Amino acid sequence: MDATLQKVKEYLFKQETWEQFGLIFLKVIVILLLTAIAVRVGKHIIQKIFLVRQKSPLAYSERRQTTLMKLLQNILSYVVYFSAIIAILSTFDIKVTGLLAGAGILGLAVGFGAQSLVKDVITGFFIVFEDQFAVGDQVQIGTANGIVQEIGLRTTKVKSYTGELHIIPNGSILVVINYSIYNSLALIDISVASETDIPTLEENIQEFLKELPIKYEELVKPPSFLGVQSFDATQIVVRITAETIPTKQMGVARKVRRDLKEFLEQKGIKIS
Amino acid sequence: MDATLQKVKEYLFKQETWEQFGLIFLKVIVILLLTAIAVRVGKHIIQKIFLVRQKSPLAYSERRQTTLMKLLQNILSYVVYFSAIIAILSTFDIKVTGLLAGAGILGLAVGFGAQSLVKDVITGFFIVFEDQFAVGDQVQIGTANGIVQEIGLRTTKVKSYTGELHIIPNGSILVVINYSIYNSLALIDISVASETDIPTLEENIQEFLKELPIKYEELVKPPSFLGVQSFDATQIVVRITAETIPTKQMGVARKVRRDLKEFLEQKGIKIS
Amino acid sequence: MDATLQKVKEYLFKQETWEQFGLIFLKVIVILLLTAIAVRVGKHIIQKIFLVRQKSPLAYSERRQTTLMKLLQNILSYVVYFSAIIAILSTFDIKVTGLLAGAGILGLAVGFGAQSLVKDVITGFFIVFEDQFAVGDQVQIGTANGIVQEIGLRTTKVKSYTGELHIIPNGSILVVINYSIYNSLALIDISVASETDIPTLEENIQEFLKELPIKYEELVKPPSFLGVQSFDATQIVVRITAETIPTKQMGVARKVRRDLKEFLEQKGIKIS
Amino acid sequence: MDATLQKVKEYLFKQETWEQFGLIFLKVIVILLLTAIAVRVGKHIIQKIFLVRQKSPLAYSERRQTTLMKLLQNILSYVVYFSAIIAILSTFDIKVTGLLAGAGILGLAVGFGAQSLVKDVITGFFIVFEDQFAVGDQVQIGTANGIVQEIGLRTTKVKSYTGELHIIPNGSILVVINYSIYNSLALIDISVASETDIPTLEENIQEFLKELPIKYEELVKPPSFLGVQSFDATQIVVRITAETIPTKQMGVARKVRRDLKEFLEQKGIKIS
Amino acid sequence: MDATLQKVKEYLFKQETWEQFGLIFLKVIVILLLTAIAVRVGKHIIQKIFLVRQKSPLAYSERRQTTLMKLLQNILSYVVYFSAIIAILSTFDIKVTGLLAGAGILGLAVGFGAQSLVKDVITGFFIVFEDQFAVGDQVQIGTANGIVQEIGLRTTKVKSYTGELHIIPNGSILVVINYSIYNSLALIDISVASETDIPTLEENIQEFLKELPIKYEELVKPPSFLGVQSFDATQIVVRITAETIPTKQMGVARKVRRDLKEFLEQKGIKIS
Amino acid sequence: MDATLQKVKEYLFKQETWEQFGLIFLKVIVILLLTAIAVRVGKHIIQKIFLVRQKSPLAYSERRQTTLMKLLQNILSYVVYFSAIIAILSTFDIKVTGLLAGAGILGLAVGFGAQSLVKDVITGFFIVFEDQFAVGDQVQIGTANGIVQEIGLRTTKVKSYTGELHIIPNGSILVVINYSIYNSLALIDISVASETDIPTLEENIQEFLKELPIKYEELVKPPSFLGVQSFDATQIVVRITAETIPTKQMGVARKVRRDLKEFLEQKGIKIS
Amino acid sequence: MDATLQKVKEYLFKQETWEQFGLIFLKVIVILLLTAIAVRVGKHIIQKIFLVRQKSPLAYSERRQTTLMKLLQNILSYVVYFSAIIAILSTFDIKVTGLLAGAGILGLAVGFGAQSLVKDVITGFFIVFEDQFAVGDQVQIGTANGIVQEIGLRTTKVKSYTGELHIIPNGSILVVINYSIYNSLALIDISVASETDIPTLEENIQEFLKELPIKYEELVKPPSFLGVQSFDATQIVVRITAETIPTKQMGVARKVRRDLKEFLEQKGIKIS
Repeated sequence: MDATLQKVKEYLFKQETWEQFGLIFLKVIVILLLTAIAVRVGKHIIQKIFLVRQKSPLAYSERRQTTLMKLLQNILSYVVYFSAIIAILSTFDIKVTGLLAGAGILGLAVGFGAQSLVKDVITGFFIVFEDQFAVGDQVQIGTANGIVQEIGLRTTKVKSYTGELHIIPNGSILVVINYSIYNSLALIDISVASETDIPTLEENIQEFLKELPIKYEELVKPPSFLGVQSFDATQIVVRITAETIPTKQMGVARKVRRDLKEFLEQKGIKIS
Repeated sequence: MDATLQKVKEYLFKQETWEQFGLIFLKVIVILLLTAIAVRVGKHIIQKIFLVRQKSPLAYSERRQTTLMKLLQNILSYVVYFSAIIAILSTFDIKVTGLLAGAGILGLAVGFGAQSLVKDVITGFFIVFEDQFAVGDQVQIGTANGIVQEIGLRTTKVKSYTGELHIIPNGSILVVINYSIYNSLALIDISVASETDIPTLEENIQEFLKELPIKYEELVKPPSFLGVQSFDATQIVVRITAETIPTKQMGVARKVRRDLKEFLEQKGIKIS
Repeated sequence: MDATLQKVKEYLFKQETWEQFGLIFLKVIVILLLTAIAVRVGKHIIQKIFLVRQKSPLAYSERRQTTLMKLLQNILSYVVYFSAIIAILSTFDIKVTGLLAGAGILGLAVGFGAQSLVKDVITGFFIVFEDQFAVGDQVQIGTANGIVQEIGLRTTKVKSYTGELHIIPNGSILVVINYSIYNSLALIDISVASETDIPTLEENIQEFLKELPIKYEELVKPPSFLGVQSFDATQIVVRITAETIPTKQMGVARKVRRDLKEFLEQKGIKIS
Repeated sequence: MDATLQKVKEYLFKQETWEQFGLIFLKVIVILLLTAIAVRVGKHIIQKIFLVRQKSPLAYSERRQTTLMKLLQNILSYVVYFSAIIAILSTFDIKVTGLLAGAGILGLAVGFGAQSLVKDVITGFFIVFEDQFAVGDQVQIGTANGIVQEIGLRTTKVKSYTGELHIIPNGSILVVINYSIYNSLALIDISVASETDIPTLEENIQEFLKELPIKYEELVKPPSFLGVQSFDATQIVVRITAETIPTKQMGVARKVRRDLKEFLEQKGIKIS
Repeated sequence: MDATLQKVKEYLFKQETWEQFGLIFLKVIVILLLTAIAVRVGKHIIQKIFLVRQKSPLAYSERRQTTLMKLLQNILSYVVYFSAIIAILSTFDIKVTGLLAGAGILGLAVGFGAQSLVKDVITGFFIVFEDQFAVGDQVQIGTANGIVQEIGLRTTKVKSYTGELHIIPNGSILVVINYSIYNSLALIDISVASETDIPTLEENIQEFLKELPIKYEELVKPPSFLGVQSFDATQIVVRITAETIPTKQMGVARKVRRDLKEFLEQKGIKIS
Repeated sequence: MDATLQKVKEYLFKQETWEQFGLIFLKVIVILLLTAIAVRVGKHIIQKIFLVRQKSPLAYSERRQTTLMKLLQNILSYVVYFSAIIAILSTFDIKVTGLLAGAGILGLAVGFGAQSLVKDVITGFFIVFEDQFAVGDQVQIGTANGIVQEIGLRTTKVKSYTGELHIIPNGSILVVINYSIYNSLALIDISVASETDIPTLEENIQEFLKELPIKYEELVKPPSFLGVQSFDATQIVVRITAETIPTKQMGVARKVRRDLKEFLEQKGIKIS
Repeated sequence: MDATLQKVKEYLFKQETWEQFGLIFLKVIVILLLTAIAVRVGKHIIQKIFLVRQKSPLAYSERRQTTLMKLLQNILSYVVYFSAIIAILSTFDIKVTGLLAGAGILGLAVGFGAQSLVKDVITGFFIVFEDQFAVGDQVQIGTANGIVQEIGLRTTKVKSYTGELHIIPNGSILVVINYSIYNSLALIDISVASETDIPTLEENIQEFLKELPIKYEELVKPPSFLGVQSFDATQIVVRITAETIPTKQMGVARKVRRDLKEFLEQKGIKIS
């Protein structure tokens, strides 16, 4: 112990120590500078390549382009930053690869602790590979519902309608609901008074539905009248379904409901 | 460190370096081209083979055909893309198989992290092998309810009635509810005023049910009247069951309910 | 890389290559044919053996027969199909057993990923072995409630009353509720107005219950009157229990409730 | 491949093959016969031994007897059937012990997959060993509530009041609630109108409780009046507790509640 | 196979076999006898030692005594019974220790399956060691709430107020709520009509609270009036808190609430 | 077996055996005595050292002092008791360290079973190290809410407001909510009749809030009026926020609410 | 044993023992002193460096600065404290690295028990690395919602609006919702009487919305009127959306709702 203290004292008051410190400090700064430049230049080059590819005959769909571009930028920054960290640790004479190869209790603990990290990367890779969803799609992942902003190596970012950014580790993504692949179906339930004559009601609604596609371009085909959904002593509920382009069903339902209300009131049918 | 910097500088300013870079770039482009062609041609061939088989005496049911065709296309694209990735990594002199064989902490972490991937593939294989469900079936898997679009090696795609695409990792599929194997049973509950005479009501409903099968072709056999389900001071609830062809029970129930309402009102029985 | 390309070119334009391809194609077709025949013939033989056994003095209960027959057919198809897959892979010179013996990261991942498969098979074996339930029993497993259709090596199939087929991996079967082993007990609660005299009510119900067993053959013994279950300012609830043959309690309760209503109304007791 | 086909053909058309098949078939039948006999005889012997022991001075409580008898019969059938399976597999020249000793990926998967089986057996052993519950006890295990029918090596069977048989893997038994060890306590809440005078009410109830033990033999000691449980603007709720012999609290509460209602109405106290 | 059968036959018809069987049977009976005696005598001795210790100056608190006595008896019966089982297995020439040392698939499965058993014992040891709760304490563990009856090596037994015995594996005990360590606090909420004058109400309640400690010995100190808890258009809710000796807060709250009602009604304040 | 019995008999009737037993008994008693003394003396010394440190210039905050003192006492008792157990086991010639080093099935099971114990100790260490909470803080851990009484090596003890002691294994502590670090914010919602004029209401409340800080010292700064929180046809809800010293928000809210009610009623504004 | 006691006695009464104790005590105090100084000085230096960097052209965004500064201080204290602990243990001649390298049961248990600790550190590193959230952001992590105070190596601290500090282990952070990255969207629902004329209502609201941006600077662009959200017999609900700067949507919604109420009442439209 005392010998150690003695060595520490000697070490701290020699000039070489401080020169070495200065050198390390300089190297670290240079590495940080190079890292910052490499990341910015690399990201710029990736963006350019994708702009070129977009015009070439080999181009994928535009949807995949954005996803891949963001992913490559994400991978680039990982590679550069990790190289920088290893370089910095080397200036302090710490050998990272040796640490990783070393087994024992610590190795076991790290192996177990890192498994969710590895799972994140593997799942992330397959999400992009299988084109489960792309940047710009509207998805629901667990409780997060919104537009995909970025699919990274480890996390996926989803921006909800009200502006929150959900950052989801890829490994915890199980079931994905993608709203942007197929046309959506708007379900519009209207309840009228129970004394309404059903055949008349049906005729009126059918007449109303004929005019709709002209008014709303989000509609893929004329809505269809499904029939009486339920009835009791006070009301009859009828259902209309309307196929719209992806993710527009809420807006269409809102408009159709308002129009139908006015239409039925003109026809003298009481909404309940 | 300084030596390294020196080497980096030398390496960057030699002409051979840039020629090598150009060559690698070319090779990558060629590999990408071949990959794209291989996938498209392969998928086309698989589709043709299945068209031929469909007419041969050896043909499975049509239901299995679509499932197998989509699965083979899915496996093909995996095989081709992975070959491409290994080929590209080889041009950069990275040996993938060596990485996979290497043990240590990283190996442990990867082994654990990849287990859910392996589980996905094994479960996917058994889903197809055991014919749990096929492309086109209506199923419920966890909270996802809809028509199966594709059963892949790693994920199954289910499109719900309102248009969302659910992408489910095969490994997280536990209980599967398949609606398309057996005939469905529509349960139709009608509540009438409590002062209604039950025997008269039963006679009327029996009479009504006799005419039904002629009207609706989805009905497999005449619906049967089950009896009084419950009663209290204000109403009597009776239940009718109708066996329909798979997945049509909702539509049949809707129509029978509407017809029965009109029928009972004609007979002077008050619906409550 | 270039050498590889050269080899690929040579390989593709030699005649031997194509002859070999043709041969492999032929072999695969023959294997598929033999597989299809083997499965059908094998399943037929199993069915015959069980028909013979059913008449022999060694026969188990009929209930076990169907279960075992379906299970043996299920095992047969697994054995035949797996043999076929290994045979096909052999024609492509892929050694499966070698793959399975190989350790390393991949082996670890497969070992972990396959554990739920192994658990399925072990649990399935014990379900049949311990006769927990048989084909034809009404059971509840998790949220699936219905008639068992098949107990396979890996999955159990349960068909619900309304026609859905639930496919449940055996390994995820924990608590099983079997409705078909013991007689069922129908609980029939009747609520009458609070001013009703309890002793009179009891006498009337006792009288009513005496006649019941003659009317309904599902009843195992005369129902018993349990007494006042609860009461408040507006109503008195009394409970009747009736032991029926397995799974018939719902139907019996429905009929008894209707009869009792008419009976009590004749006696001038108001149902609330 | 062709050589293999040739060998298969030769093998199938030689007479020895068929003689060998016949022999194996015979052996299997003999093994099955012996198994069936061994199980029946063994179970009978176990039952006899327990009948003898019951009269000997060494006898445990009767409660333990039934449990142990059923468990030994269960273990016997496991041992006999497993011996039979190994014997049958031996006739096909398959060495089971060799399979179990073999390590590798398959071994890892089996080791993991079998852990819940082992856990079942260990937990089952301790349930019997620690006398947590015995055959005939009323218990609640998870959501299953009823009378224990059998405690086996791997599963416990509980029959609910309405006749369902719950089959529970021992390993998934965590907290057990046993109703048959200690006396039960019936909680009887009576709500009277808020204008009732509390001291008078207390006196009346005390008087009523004195007579009770004579009427009901399930009561262990006279019920005690706990006091006012809660009150608001419309009602006062008082609570009575009655200690009964195990599991009889529901019946006693039902009878006491009915008697108390009549008693209080005679005394002119209004039940609300 | 035939040779085996021959050997079995020879073995069964030799006299030595039956003599050996008789001997084994005798030995097993002797072992069982000794076990029964050892357990009873051992438990008696432990009880005596604790009775002696209780009077010695070295004695722990009485609370710990009962816990330790029950635990030692529990451990004793484990040790004796396990010795008996190993002795019985030895008479059948089965070597248990050899089984436990043997590795392979079975060993892996047993190692995993037994981990929850080991966890039970470790946790049980620490519960007693850290004096988390003792026999006689009122505790809540998960959903089980009641008086601790026994803390064993593997399970803890808790008897609820209504008489059920909860048997909880020690390993599944996470958070323990112990009601018997500190004094309890009774929260008494009284709601009065909203037109009540708050200062007058407060004065009255303060006056009422002064007399309380004399009446109820469970009260540790005079209850304090906390103030208006909430109010709306129809009522004002005030809260009183009363510190009582452990677990007596329910009874005290019940009595205080009834007394306060009478007191306030005498003072002309309307309870709502 | 007989030989063993013979040996047991010989062993039991030799005098040396009993002398040895007496010696062991004596040693155990001496060890227990020394243990009891060591724990008491050790705990006393720790307390003294902390009293001295509290006055020294090196002293940490008082909050940390109590935490560390209790922790050191906890560690001391663990160390002493474990030494005693090992010493006692040594007198019986059982080598503990040998047991711990031995591998095999038992080792695997113990390794797995003990992992939650190790996790408890590691997490406990970091809770103290990172100063997440200290003895005396009000915290919420899972469902336990109260004042921290002790942070031990394996468990943390939290006493709730109503007197229950929650004993929580450190390893099951995930999110900790600490109420004692920052000032608390009281949210006070007041609902007034919907016909109230909002500007007048605001003025009145602002006026009321100005006087508050003088009255209540728990207030850190004057409360602020947040505005109309919600409104409908019958009422307007306004919100006031008041920053108080930690954990005093409930009491302040109760007082402010009562004062505001009186104030508004004086001003003629009706509370709904 | 006796020999050991003798040795203990000799050891305790030699003078050297006490001198050694004194020396160790002194060393420990010196280490503690140096530790305290090192931590304070180190934290100060880190703060200074960041102040300098903030003005340099190399500076990151200010948001990252605070996060990194706090993280580096956190890492520093870990490194210093751990060095101190190892130094103190060395004075007692305990070799920590030897303990960590030792395998066996204990090693296995520690390896498993430490995995959640390792996971915490890995996840924490990636949270900072990927800039998921920074000190000062408003986030929701699980049930904790508030402002991030510190991102440490092992835990993240979030202060909620009402003053509670949530301390969350990094490894248990799955989905993060970050409110501070994108603009927020306020959803304002207003329900009016069902007899209101919808076109008039829309005109009025549109007129009202035009004036808003001038009044509230948190508004990013003029709010938009979305239309009729739902309607029934008693009311019509219309929705307005307003984009605000991050996290200000609640305040804006509160103000807009109050203004709109006054505006509509002036226009004679009845709020329901």
